[in-house]
Formats: sequence, structure tokens, C-alpha cells
Amino acid sequence: MMEDMNIVGGASPQALAGAARAAAVLEARSVAIVGASADPGKIAGRPLAYMLSRGFVGKLFPVNPTRDQVQGLKSYPSLAAIGEPVDLAIVGTPAGLVEDVIREGAAAGVKAFVVFSSGFSETGEEGAALQRRLGELARAQGVTILGPNCLGVANSATGLIASFTTALEETPIKQGGFAFVSQSGALGAYWMDICLRSGLGFSKWITTGNECDMDAASAIAYLADDPQTRVIGLYVEDIRDSLAFRRALLRAAAAGKPVIAIKAGRSQAGAAAAASHTGALAGDDALYDACLRQHGALRVDSLGQMMDVARLFLFDSVPQGKRLAVMSVSGGAGVLIADEAERWALELPALAPQTAQALAPVLPSFVKAANPLDLTGNVVQDTASISRALEAVARDPGNDAIVLFVGLMHSIATAFTDAIAQARQRTHRPIVVIWIGAKEESVSVLEQARIPVFRDIPPAVAALGAAVRLNGLRHAALTAPALPAPRCDAMPAASIAFLLEWDSKALLRELGTAGIPDGVLVDGDMPDRLPAPLAYPVVAKLQASTVLHKSDIGGVVLGIMDDEQLRAALLRLRAIASDRGIDARGILLESMQRFDHELLLGLRRDVRFGPTLTLGRGGVEVELDPDVVCRLLPLDAQGIQEMIEGLRSAKLLQGFRGRGAVDLPALAWQIAGLCEAFLARPDLAEIEINPLAVGEGQAWVLDAVVSRFE
Amino acid sequence: MMEDMNIVGGASPQALAGAARAAAVLEARSVAIVGASADPGKIAGRPLAYMLSRGFVGKLFPVNPTRDQVQGLKSYPSLAAIGEPVDLAIVGTPAGLVEDVIREGAAAGVKAFVVFSSGFSETGEEGAALQRRLGELARAQGVTILGPNCLGVANSATGLIASFTTALEETPIKQGGFAFVSQSGALGAYWMDICLRSGLGFSKWITTGNECDMDAASAIAYLADDPQTRVIGLYVEDIRDSLAFRRALLRAAAAGKPVIAIKAGRSQAGAAAAASHTGALAGDDALYDACLRQHGALRVDSLGQMMDVARLFLFDSVPQGKRLAVMSVSGGAGVLIADEAERWALELPALAPQTAQALAPVLPSFVKAANPLDLTGNVVQDTASISRALEAVARDPGNDAIVLFVGLMHSIATAFTDAIAQARQRTHRPIVVIWIGAKEESVSVLEQARIPVFRDIPPAVAALGAAVRLNGLRHAALTAPALPAPRCDAMPAASIAFLLEWDSKALLRELGTAGIPDGVLVDGDMPDRLPAPLAYPVVAKLQASTVLHKSDIGGVVLGIMDDEQLRAALLRLRAIASDRGIDARGILLESMQRFDHELLLGLRRDVRFGPTLTLGRGGVEVELDPDVVCRLLPLDAQGIQEMIEGLRSAKLLQGFRGRGAVDLPALAWQIAGLCEAFLARPDLAEIEINPLAVGEGQAWVLDAVVSRFE
Repeated sequence: MMEDMNIVGGASPQALAGAARAAAVLEARSVAIVGASADPGKIAGRPLAYMLSRGFVGKLFPVNPTRDQVQGLKSYPSLAAIGEPVDLAIVGTPAGLVEDVIREGAAAGVKAFVVFSSGFSETGEEGAALQRRLGELARAQGVTILGPNCLGVANSATGLIASFTTALEETPIKQGGFAFVSQSGALGAYWMDICLRSGLGFSKWITTGNECDMDAASAIAYLADDPQTRVIGLYVEDIRDSLAFRRALLRAAAAGKPVIAIKAGRSQAGAAAAASHTGALAGDDALYDACLRQHGALRVDSLGQMMDVARLFLFDSVPQGKRLAVMSVSGGAGVLIADEAERWALELPALAPQTAQALAPVLPSFVKAANPLDLTGNVVQDTASISRALEAVARDPGNDAIVLFVGLMHSIATAFTDAIAQARQRTHRPIVVIWIGAKEESVSVLEQARIPVFRDIPPAVAALGAAVRLNGLRHAALTAPALPAPRCDAMPAASIAFLLEWDSKALLRELGTAGIPDGVLVDGDMPDRLPAPLAYPVVAKLQASTVLHKSDIGGVVLGIMDDEQLRAALLRLRAIASDRGIDARGILLESMQRFDHELLLGLRRDVRFGPTLTLGRGGVEVELDPDVVCRLLPLDAQGIQEMIEGLRSAKLLQGFRGRGAVDLPALAWQIAGLCEAFLARPDLAEIEINPLAVGEGQAWVLDAVVSRFE
Repeated sequence: MMEDMNIVGGASPQALAGAARAAAVLEARSVAIVGASADPGKIAGRPLAYMLSRGFVGKLFPVNPTRDQVQGLKSYPSLAAIGEPVDLAIVGTPAGLVEDVIREGAAAGVKAFVVFSSGFSETGEEGAALQRRLGELARAQGVTILGPNCLGVANSATGLIASFTTALEETPIKQGGFAFVSQSGALGAYWMDICLRSGLGFSKWITTGNECDMDAASAIAYLADDPQTRVIGLYVEDIRDSLAFRRALLRAAAAGKPVIAIKAGRSQAGAAAAASHTGALAGDDALYDACLRQHGALRVDSLGQMMDVARLFLFDSVPQGKRLAVMSVSGGAGVLIADEAERWALELPALAPQTAQALAPVLPSFVKAANPLDLTGNVVQDTASISRALEAVARDPGNDAIVLFVGLMHSIATAFTDAIAQARQRTHRPIVVIWIGAKEESVSVLEQARIPVFRDIPPAVAALGAAVRLNGLRHAALTAPALPAPRCDAMPAASIAFLLEWDSKALLRELGTAGIPDGVLVDGDMPDRLPAPLAYPVVAKLQASTVLHKSDIGGVVLGIMDDEQLRAALLRLRAIASDRGIDARGILLESMQRFDHELLLGLRRDVRFGPTLTLGRGGVEVELDPDVVCRLLPLDAQGIQEMIEGLRSAKLLQGFRGRGAVDLPALAWQIAGLCEAFLARPDLAEIEINPLAVGEGQAWVLDAVVSRFE
């Protein structure tokens, strides 16, 4: 059932194929520009102009039958006329002509195409059909197509700029370790603009557009192995091949490359807008969220946040753990930093006694050596104290990073930058500087020493918290069980049949599920007394395929204590059925169980993400304020236990005031068995157990509905 | 009991006195600088240098016995030697000499002093004593003292710069509608720097330091009436006179001036750090939070957030309500804006049919007229569409503001800025622009037209959400009941005695509290049967002053159904008492009540904030995940109902699955009565009712502890 893809990293043949497709585009050394314009300002002129001015290392072939020369280069009347096979052709012709250009190019030996042209699936069904034909053409001809309707790619190492983005108009390109993959051209352009203006630079930049062939997953798989890339940014709207996407994310995680992702549509309003914008299913967002998190990617809400987190990684300034030492020239700012740290589950542990001792001669007499440490405005008079205080705190074994707050203090800016840069060299401890009102030159000196500088408190602490969280996710993803081999979308598009509770529980027993209460289905005559092996108290539940919510029509009688009450209950349920004309299969009698907590459990096969597990707090109150966690399968018992611990109400399960503590490992192990059974039965659409009643020693399946593809 | 201060706005004599103190400092037209230095870079030289270079409109008198001239002005040997009374003297002499300088100045007719000198309460008890003497001196001499240990003040209208802040070193001052009051000099300097560099400008700038005399409340009261001030920023660490502070906030609210406040110490770690930094009590934060909110002030977490919200108010760009129309050149960005909007409880209502109709000819055929509205990159080809689309959306009656997202698009930047500025002129609808990668000149053109521009999505939406929230708080504060006359801190600093449940309930009955179950106190012999007027089921509770938590020692027997069980219960409780050597007053027997929900209610007299009300969800689960709201008194029934509605679990009280809905207005009215009774009894320290059991028709005081000052 399992394939150990995530252990071997890049070994999966699918991932390799995807990465190779991306390489065919990004590592092109000879590029033809179909319809190249002599005007470097025009869309059809920009790629050539960009590559000429930025010194593309390979060969350039303008293709324009109406000219001999384009932007100073010999122009060819057609791709075939170039006379040698080229790696990549850039195509921006009207949608209806793209197919012909690719056919002609493939015949002439072109290996890959970047298609800017719009007029495909984004415009309606006709365009979608055209786009499907492009994808088929790529597979038939063995070529790679990026797009259509994309903004192209850039590779800072070779100067390849197969793009007409205006983001490159004025800013020189700069090499760096940050790569970006975007399904939106617009977001791609914004990223490029911010990245270049912030001085971070980039390695590869890939916008995938409508993804008729090469997709975001291919791009990520490629970047995972790209030596120039250290951090991967991602903007996704709609993932079609979720398994390839998951493999690619794991491959990046295995390669030690953090992935920072934006996925729009987190809110209800946003999901509705996303559905109208991209055709994505509303309600998918929780699964995207789970997918990113489980495969080691951090989700952020904006490009600004992405840049902030990326900078920490690019500058090797991510704390190994969550313990911060805060030093501040203003006591108030130190408190504000402590406030933000708690929001991100970062800690400010007390300083070690030897650190306090070392700090005593450095600080004014009325200042206590604490965390946050108040350096006070005194540093203006005693600049040597900055260096000494930094050194003492960097030696403290009890922190994972130093956050230094400075405000203005331009007169001693050099003392600060010198002290910080020196401290950074002498220690492996990351130092992050928050400097309100910093001068550009101070920031520049520090960033050249690879010390990240922020200009306000919340973004700095948020970036630290998010980076620590990312490392945690990445670590967890690499130790999680392997992906299941079956394709997530290899699901029968059939109708779905719901089983009665009685049949659902029988099927669950077949699957080896423990904790199903003893029960019998009675019909016809009433039993005189309780049938063996049941014991009072008993619950009686009407079983009818037309009744989905039994208790809403009074179809459940709880707490039956003796034979007399049993007879009354059965009479009542039959009366309800006959009054409502319900064709009941019978009445389920079950022994009632003692329990402390109610959970709910849902296993589903999602059309995009395949098998998923939902766990939540059960009981009626929760309907008003849901407390659920959703994850993609497979999960092992460890992962399931972490899901339960991630519930807001997790603390309740540890027992309180007379309610017993739940044996979480045992519960997780039991659920893991059910998950495995569900994975092995692709005919099952859904298993819903609500409530899953948990006592000290046992979890009971009190009610269950199983549905099946037919 | 009540004083209608908040109705008449500025009429309170206390507030007037505070405002007058601040005016004495800020409106000074003649300023003496004690110890003025000839070196404009030195602390003692900067105020004079700043005022000379920024054109202070009044007279300047350097006081320096060692020189004839200082920075080109005639220097005087002493304050007395000036020969005419001056409005304000700036004092930076060593702590020990300050008292003498003020005495001399007061004798010479100086009306106010700004004291930079440190070495007072921030250094320990000796300094604190010195500081107390300064305060007494101010009151004895009838002069105003700002500080000590402060960074001074600035008034952009007169060019008064009684400060040595380096934030003014390089940037020219600019008049604007934004004022700042800060208890921290450092935060004050950062604010000034950001404010000037962002081009917002300021009206008044006031750092209050150790507040021996003039405090933040005085500054706010003054700014409430200051015609140059439209928005008030605030940084507070520790409010001593909370009643003056509350009056001042209400006065600003009544004057229509939004107050945006930073109060450090929101988190547990932060509160601990704040306690060590300012000596504030940890645990106070919830009360500060309530205080700010109830008096119409918005709390933010950083100076950046403060600037963002302030800019919306200063540019008259705050939506009247929470309905946004979002327009975006990128579909993805539109979705991201919708995501952030939901986080801030802002809504994106559907466009009106006539708006959709008006937009149809403006948009590409494949784009649907929706909210968010995707303008697509098409605007580059059809710049006229920007103006037409903006106009159509601005005419839609269904939104309160337009958020327009642009990215890059420098080639058509002018088309954008023209269209936006025009639309802004033609409509009263606020327009907020988010422009990723905007050029400085585009931002500058828009901001000159008073259109706020943000460079990323989250800060823009956060500012909009916060501004709408602020207006709501301000409105609520102005309709809340008046402040109680008694000083909050006029509380006996005596010991506190806790009453037994039996006595507590008797006292509550005295106070007119409804819903106290029928009960009798039995002792001595056991009753043969249930004493009248009780009816089974009954609860029996041991009453002993040494037992604070009865149930922890088994001192509560619930569900007593008949005389036999009653006897058994009484025997058991007596055995427990005698086994533990507890000297019990007796056993309380009470009829048990049916109820649906458990709340908890706490009334307390806080040493800083006076009477407070805490309401929360009761029951044992909540101990693990508290759900409480705390407010300062007075509150009317409406305010109490809003408190209950502000609980996370408020939805539960609306009834669900068999549990009845609570009659909230009736419950709030009942609690309001109790609050009024508590306000009228200053001898009571605390009333805690837990649980307050709420059924459909009634709230029951199931357990209660009252404590009294002795």
C-alpha cells in the first residue's frame, strides 16, 4: 500500500519527470522568441530586450518573418528556419495559433515552450478545450509547455528572462537564494519587484499560468534540487495533481529548503471569491491548509510576511528553538516585544545566573539583569556596553536567538552596527535587529553582515515565530509516514450510497474496529425481555434509510433501564415510524456505555486530496463553535495524537474534576488502525463516527454512518 | 451617586484643571532654558537650537551664569534675573538641584516647568521621595511641572520645542492633525521620527515621564479641546489617577477625536516585564484593556499600526460602516483582501444589480461583476475603464468604502492616480488604495489628494477594520452611563474579611438580589424532616469560615431526594467537620434549581480602577479555557448585555438542542441592579457568584462569597 517516496527524497520517477520538465524551461541555453518585436517596450519585444541588457549567457533567435533584424539580432522567418534545435521558444501569438507554433517548433527540435498567450481556460469552455489540446500535444510530442496565460520564467544565474513582466523594467536582476513559483502572473510580478528592491535577489522565478503541462509541483521539484535555491516561495490558487504537489513539497523539505506559501481563500468570503476567480471548490481551503502544513510548508498571508520569513532563512538567522533573549534600549519596547513573542508561542526564559553576573558591571546600577534586558538610553554615553552586553547574552546557553531593539540613536549607529556585526561573527547565535527609525546606511551595513533588520516590532517577532514554526513543520513532515501509492483522484465518479447505522457498524467490525457496543436489530414482534448479550441500560434507535438524523424525529430512546421501559420504547419508536410512513429496517438496541468525552471522527475521500481524516470535539455545544482538525492521510498514530493535541479543547482530554484522562496514545493507535483500514478500501467514500465516546480505558463508536461508491 | 461628566464633555472642573496645566506648558510664549549650553548638539543646547532654527514665535531666555551670550542670545545669570515673568522654564539640572530651581522660578513668576532631569522614582525609593516633594511643590506654588525624567513637549503651531529628542535633529517639523502623548520618552521619539518622515506632521507632542504633577490625563484633556488636534495617539505604561484618565478619554471622544493607544504588557510575559519596568501590577492589563475600550479608545500593538489607523482618520477615509467594495487588478489579490477583511469582521456585500449593469460594458466579457471586482490586467490597454469602474462602484449604495488594489503598472500610474483622485472628489465614499510596488511619486500624488496608500494588503485591511472598530467604541462610550463620583482609589487600605456562603447570601438578599434559592442553616440536632419552606431535591453544604472550597473536602452533598438521604447527608457532613477539626457554623440546606447554563459573576473594587465587573462562562471545563469579559463600572443593562454577548460561548446562551435560550435583557437588567447595589456599598471589597445558574425564566445564585473591608 505504501511507497517510501519521502525517505528517498528525489527518487520518485514522477517527481523526476516533473523536475526535468521545469529544467527544460529554466536551463535553456538557446531561446527563440516567436513574433519578436523590435520595440523593447512592447510585450513581444521585452523578453529579448531584457535578455540582451541582462547578458543572457546563451543564444537568442528572434523569429519574425517581416524583418531581417530585431533589436540588433538576425531575425528568422520561422522556428524551422533557425536551422539548429533550440532549447526554448517563447510564444505570445493569438490563442488559435499557438497549437501550430508548437507543432512546428517540436518538429524543428524545440524542447520547451513558454506560452504567454491568453484566451484559454480563463475565458470559458472553448478556451479550456483549446488548452486541453495543448497539454495533449506536449505529451504526444514529448515537449514541455509552460502556460498558457503565464508571465514566464527567469533564471538569475544564466540571465534567462522568458517574461514580459514590467517588474524587471527598471531594476537590475540580482542573484540570490530565493526562488518563487506562482500560479498568478500578477503576484509573480509583485514578488519580483519586492525581492529585487529589497536587495534579496532571486535564483529562479516561475509563473505557471493555466498549467496545461508543466505545473507548480514540477517547479517545486526542480527547485528542491537547484543548487542556487535555498528558500522557495509559493503562490497557489488551485492544485490539480495533489499527489505530485505533495511529493514535490516533501522533496523540498528533504532537501532542507523551507517552503513559504500563500494560498488565497482562507476565509469564507475569500473562498467564495476564489471559487469565482479560479473555479476552485469552496470548502477546499482546510485541505489545502492541511496539505501545506503536513508537507512541511508554512502558510503566510502576504508577500510582505513571506519576505520577512525568507530573509531570516537566507541570512541563516532562524533560531534553533523558541527561546529568545530580548535586549532593548527602551524598557517599553522590550515589553512590547515580550507581548508579541507570546502571541507566536516564543519564550523569553530568565537569564542564567552567570549571565546576570556578567551583565552587572555593564548595566546602570538601577537596572536588573532580566529578559527582556533594558539597556536604557545609557548606551549613548557608554557605547562599549553594547558589545559587552551582547557578548554576555550570546554566551547564555538558555536562548536560541537574540533580538536587539534600537530606536533612532543615529549618533552612535556605528557603535551599534560594529558591536552587532562583531557579536554575530563570534557566535552562532542568530541576532535579529529591530531598529525603529534606522538609517538606510545602518540597515545596509547590518544586512551585508547577514543580520536581518526590521523597522517595527510585530513583523520581526512574527517572522521569528513563523520561521521556528516552519522548521517544526518541516521536521515533522520528514518523519511522517510515506504517501500512499494510489492516486488521490483515481476515485470512482459514481454515486454514493449511505449505510444504516446497523450496517455501518457491521462494516466497521469487519474492518477490525474496536469499541462497537453490543447490539441487536429487532423487528417484527417485540422481545419480551432484553435479548442476550445486552445488559441494561440500553438505547433503542430507529433504523431507516430515509432518516438521516434519528434524534430530530425522536427516533432515539436513551437510558432504558428495564424490560417494561424497553417495551414502551419499542412501541413508541414503531408509532413514530408508522405515523411518519417511514419504512424502517428495524430498531437497534445497544448497551449504553459510560464515557467522559465525546469526539467526532470523519474519514473521507476528497476528489482533489484523496483520503482525509477529520477529528473534533463532539457533543452538541460544538455545533455552535466547531473545534476540529483536518489532515490528509496517511497518518501514523503519532500524527493522529498530534491532531488531537491540536484541538482547542485538548486540555479537557487530560482529565479534570472527576472526568478521567484519556489514554491518548491508545486512542491514536486505535484511530490509526481505522485509517489504515479506510485506505485499504477504496470503495468507501466516507466513515463518520459521531460521537466517538472516550472513557478512561476505551473509545466507543456510539453512532456511525458509512457511505460507499456504487 | 452619579455625575453626568461624560454628557457635558469638558465641563468637569478636574478635567479643566488638568487641561489648564497642559496648556500652561504647551502654549508657552516665553521660555527660559536653565543651564542652556552654547553647543547645539548637547542635551542642554538642543532645545534652544531647535527653537531658534524652527522659528519659535515667542521669546527665548537662556539662563547660564557663566556666559553673556548663548547661541547668539543674551544669557541671564538666573531665572530671577530675566526681569519679567516667563511662561515656561526648561530644567535639566541634576536631580538634587531641581527643587531649588523650581522654587526660584516660581518666585520669579515662572508658571510651568519641563524637567528633563533623571534620578527620581526610576532609580529607587530615595528618588521617589525627591519626586514626591516636586509634586507637593507644584501644588503649593500653583505652578505646573511636566516630568521629571521626561523628553519634553513640542507644539508645531508655535515652534515650541521644549525637548532634547534626537528625533528632531534632521527632519523639519511639519504641522498636522496628529498629537501624541507618551509616558515613555523613547516611544515618544520614535513616534515623532515616524510621523515626520511619513509626512503626516503633528499638532502637539507630549512626553510625561515620571508624572510628579502633570499627567497623561491632563495632556489628553487638553488635546480634546485643541483646535489643531484631530487624532490623539497614546502610549501608557501606568495610570495612577484612573478617574482623571477616564474623564479625559471621554472628553476626547465627546470632542469627536479618536484616541489610538499602545499599552504594553498584554501578554503574561509582557505583563511580568512591564511590572519590573514600570512597577505596574501584573494582572492589571485586562483592566487597562477594559478602560481604554469602554472610554472609546482603540488599543493597537505598535507605532506602525497606530500610524496606519491615524492616517485613515486624518485623511477622512474611515468607512461609516463595515461594508467594503474591493476592486483589484489581480484576482488573487482580491481574494487575499477578502480573507483579511473577514479577520477584521469587515464585509464584502454583493454589488447592487444596477452597479453590475453599469460595470458590464466596462469589464472584459469573461469577468463577472462581483465583490471583489477583478479589473484584470486589461486596464493597461483600457485605462478609461478605471475611472468608469470606480464611479460605478462609488455609486453603489451597498458599500461604505472602496478598496482599490493596484500592483506595479507604472506605465499607467498617472491614469490610476488621476482616476482615483477624481473619483474621490466626486464622492464622499472613502477610497483606500493598496499599491504593491508603487512609486514614491504616485503615493505622493494620492496622499496629497488625501487618499491613503498602503504597500501591502494586511496592514491596509487591518487599519480599515481597526478604524471602524474605533468609531464603534467611541459611539458606545458616549452613550454609556456617567462615571461614578467616588474616587476609585478612595478605598480603605484595610484588611478584607470573607463572609460565609450563608452570610453572603443574606447580604445579597439585603441588597435586593433576586434568585437566591430558599435555604435554611441547620445546626445542633438533625432535623427529622425537611424544614419548611424547602422542597426536595435539596443540597447540603458545610458552612465554615476556614473552608474556602467546600467541594474539595466533600463538604457539598447534591441531589438529596428524601428525608432518609437528608439524614445521611447531614451525618456525613458532620463527620467530615469533626474528622478535620473544622469549627463549622452549621450546614446550609437549599432547594436545588433546574437551569440550563452556568455563568460566573465577580464584582471587585480594584485599587487602581475602582469597581469592576467580571462575567464569564461557569462550570468546570472553563477553568481550563477561561471565557470571561471584564469591564469597569458603572455599566447599564445594555452594556452588561454586550459583555455577555462578547463571551466566546455567547451563542450557547441563545439556546440549542434542548437547552433553553436565556432572556438576555432580563439577565442583564438583574445584574445591573446588583452592580448598582455594589457601587452604593463602598464597604464591600468583592462579590463572587459562581455559579450564577441561568434557566429560561430566572438566574439563580447557587454559590456566593462576599468580602468586606474591615
